[in-house]
Amino acid sequence: MTISGKQLIGGEWTAGDGGAFHAVNPTNGKRLMPAISIASNRQVEAAVRMAEAASKKFKHTPLNVRADFLRSCADQIMELGDELLERVSEETGYPRARAEGERARTCNQLRMFASYIESGDYLDARIDTALPDRQPLPRPDIRHINQPIGPVVVFGASNFPLAFSVAGGDTAAALAAGCPVIVKGHPAHPGTSELVAQAIAKAVNQADLPRGVFSFLIDQGHAVGAQLVKAPAVKAVGFTGSFAGGSALVALANQRPDPIPVFAEMGSVNPMFLLPQALKNNAASLAAGFVSSFTMGSGQFCVKPGLVFAVEGPHLEEFIAAASKLVADAAPAVMLNDRICDSFGKALDERISAGDLQILAQGKAPDGQKGFYSQVTLFGSTAATILEKPELLEETFGPASIIIRCRDESEMLNAARKLPGQLTATLHGTEQELADFAALADQLVEMAGRLVVNGFPTGVEVCHSMVHGGPFPATSDARFTSVGTNAIMRFVRPVCYQNYPEALLPPALRNHNPLGITRLVNGVRTAEPIA
Amino acid sequence: MTISGKQLIGGEWTAGDGGAFHAVNPTNGKRLMPAISIASNRQVEAAVRMAEAASKKFKHTPLNVRADFLRSCADQIMELGDELLERVSEETGYPRARAEGERARTCNQLRMFASYIESGDYLDARIDTALPDRQPLPRPDIRHINQPIGPVVVFGASNFPLAFSVAGGDTAAALAAGCPVIVKGHPAHPGTSELVAQAIAKAVNQADLPRGVFSFLIDQGHAVGAQLVKAPAVKAVGFTGSFAGGSALVALANQRPDPIPVFAEMGSVNPMFLLPQALKNNAASLAAGFVSSFTMGSGQFCVKPGLVFAVEGPHLEEFIAAASKLVADAAPAVMLNDRICDSFGKALDERISAGDLQILAQGKAPDGQKGFYSQVTLFGSTAATILEKPELLEETFGPASIIIRCRDESEMLNAARKLPGQLTATLHGTEQELADFAALADQLVEMAGRLVVNGFPTGVEVCHSMVHGGPFPATSDARFTSVGTNAIMRFVRPVCYQNYPEALLPPALRNHNPLGITRLVNGVRTAEPIA
Repeated sequence: MTISGKQLIGGEWTAGDGGAFHAVNPTNGKRLMPAISIASNRQVEAAVRMAEAASKKFKHTPLNVRADFLRSCADQIMELGDELLERVSEETGYPRARAEGERARTCNQLRMFASYIESGDYLDARIDTALPDRQPLPRPDIRHINQPIGPVVVFGASNFPLAFSVAGGDTAAALAAGCPVIVKGHPAHPGTSELVAQAIAKAVNQADLPRGVFSFLIDQGHAVGAQLVKAPAVKAVGFTGSFAGGSALVALANQRPDPIPVFAEMGSVNPMFLLPQALKNNAASLAAGFVSSFTMGSGQFCVKPGLVFAVEGPHLEEFIAAASKLVADAAPAVMLNDRICDSFGKALDERISAGDLQILAQGKAPDGQKGFYSQVTLFGSTAATILEKPELLEETFGPASIIIRCRDESEMLNAARKLPGQLTATLHGTEQELADFAALADQLVEMAGRLVVNGFPTGVEVCHSMVHGGPFPATSDARFTSVGTNAIMRFVRPVCYQNYPEALLPPALRNHNPLGITRLVNGVRTAEPIA
Repeated sequence: MTISGKQLIGGEWTAGDGGAFHAVNPTNGKRLMPAISIASNRQVEAAVRMAEAASKKFKHTPLNVRADFLRSCADQIMELGDELLERVSEETGYPRARAEGERARTCNQLRMFASYIESGDYLDARIDTALPDRQPLPRPDIRHINQPIGPVVVFGASNFPLAFSVAGGDTAAALAAGCPVIVKGHPAHPGTSELVAQAIAKAVNQADLPRGVFSFLIDQGHAVGAQLVKAPAVKAVGFTGSFAGGSALVALANQRPDPIPVFAEMGSVNPMFLLPQALKNNAASLAAGFVSSFTMGSGQFCVKPGLVFAVEGPHLEEFIAAASKLVADAAPAVMLNDRICDSFGKALDERISAGDLQILAQGKAPDGQKGFYSQVTLFGSTAATILEKPELLEETFGPASIIIRCRDESEMLNAARKLPGQLTATLHGTEQELADFAALADQLVEMAGRLVVNGFPTGVEVCHSMVHGGPFPATSDARFTSVGTNAIMRFVRPVCYQNYPEALLPPALRNHNPLGITRLVNGVRTAEPIA
């Protein structure tokens, strides 16, 4: 495959009419070839029109056809081979092992959705059969199913060039649900994005699906994204990125004559709480795990632990000393792009000059290298300071974290009560301590989507039970997850049929249950046919 | 019981500090006793504070305790006996049979949610057990459950003084989910509302729940409602009413520092399509069903059929003649209150003076009666006119409907494509016709929450399969229903526990499955314990 720098509009690759730019290798600051064209207003319109037309057919695709298509997307991504892995590294600075791991995650995700939709679970098929003799009024036959919401726009994320990008979780979930997808690729990794788009386009062709099922557009600014969110035929938006970016999309969507849902995952500080006994038993290993977690991917993970709370004392000092030593040895961290590198640098400078934080340790400073490098930084503070300066509770996207000394356990609980919504919260404690601190756990579950115990928040398992979500401002809608099989629920809406002839119903709702799925029939979950 | 005109704030009845007003009997315009006090700013704050405190305890209530509480609410409402039925009729003009039917619906709804939560279905319990030997990384134990979203504000609706009001579907769903409820009662039926609030307060006492689980506030304007929607501790809002009212609440909720979901059911014109053969076979009986449906409750139902589409010809004329005859005989319709009566009158005048509609028939004119009466009105128009004047597609709340002549079937399909989001759409056709018109049915399902076949949209069955919802502007969020067991999903959000000690997990997630519920364990739905 070669990277053309073109847009994919309903199966056709065409050069963008809206200008051009180059990707940059963040490890050395060099421009990457080729030039990437930018989609024009007219091209965005064409992609939306094709998605709208495709929607009417795609929603009727049998589940097994859609499942095979998802598997074929995964196969085609694997077919890209080393070229994809190399381009990921060139565009993001991620080492090859990370690129390989993320590719595996992306393909597993596509295959997981394939199996999941075949189970029919997400359809939430519900049937209440007619009761013609009921008094005072007969009950009609009513049958309920989830149907695709319509064309979905997905914004590629900067920090996961594969798993939260062109064929990432949002795209996989939307296609699985039967929704055409238009991806707005992230300008930091346009070549990676195009390669993956080529893979999906091949899968669309092979499955003989309407070509408008998938389009891929790119630009360097906000125009393409804004036009997509405002397009009347677009029915939902998936986004992973900054609070500012997510909030802007939500505002745009709410200004439409018909507002649409924007599922924005906007990041989090992911507080960790170290309970006294756990800290006493494992100060050094906790420090190692913590430093590894907050510096992983150069601290550019939405689940990076950005705050650590513990009660002051010798064991906390031991933890701090161990963590500081590891941080001091840390090499300069390569950042995804110049903008993120600059923002992180500015945020560090502001925090340092504000004087509210103590610098516990800093890694090696970038030493005139070309490229975009940051200095790993570990801050210290107190619960009292943090509670007075809520701006310290905001995410810093990059390799920094803050250890917060609490005077006592009640101050720690009090601090937990003041935290805004989070993707995750983490507790380290012995089983006895976890029981003793049940009120803290309860508070954390109020505030976060996932409670991690004796582990670290980085590493978001792709499975049925995952909740990668959480109360505002972590996401724009706490009722949904963007990772795991339940992520499909963002892209469906329920409808019911009253007295519709059985032969005309969607297969999932027919009496003889041709799909063999589990349904809620007159209040009972069963896979049995209806007599 | 006596009606005190007081507010219920976390178990205490106190007179409102914010002024007073009287309910009015719409059949004769007479003021009803006693004076109803209005909640003050301070009293609203107190109710919110108590709901917030109650939330932390109420969410841990065992499912069977919560179920019994819901059943007790139903029992206490029945205990109110004739006093409640009489007050409903006095405040709404609804005949006793309607009041009785609505009371039965309300109590059935509470009991249905009781059984439904006992099944554990809505918890969506999902367990992925640890895979410590998985390569390259072990999988942690992850367990997923839906938990209550927190305090919910419910706005009573004008047109269903019981079923969509103080103990209506929104309240029942929120309490079932484990969320404290603050009801803002509708000022058109404050006495009815207070009686029901007394019943719930008794049930709260008997179940020994925290008193803040339920509060009841009232005012005549918008101040109390606005304050409630803006209160930081409030986490969701349920509303049934006008588009203007629902939109205002959504805007308020979106302006919060942390936006919250508003589930606003904002009405609909509920188009009906009469296919040629059905019209030929049943013109007279279709006309009777249609007139009965659009005049039911004086046309003050959100599922009133407000538009009827059919292809012109002798059978349509037969239908029009039969419907016109029934309308001409219709008595003046008593409206819920002066405001609704005035609005309907103005809407009729505007439509008549605009000259786009033909008056096919009008019922008997109100003849100087005191009270709030309207004239049943049947309009005629053409598809061409309707498509040019989209304002004619807006809901008129009251006993009016429009029959729309289409030149041919393709014009009828074209008109269907132009309709905004709806709660329901209805098709009348023979089985062969329904198959032939599959494209029309498909379009209607795109646009509505419920497709009714060979029936009428009024009569919203309370069951597992019901979808009382639909795309904007019918509701503010098409992904949820406000009637039926699935309505509970509005008031929960998912969380997951990673490696949390088994003994500390919520009962629904423990290995031995003490609740005996069906769970998704490693991808398989099962009620078996985990070994």
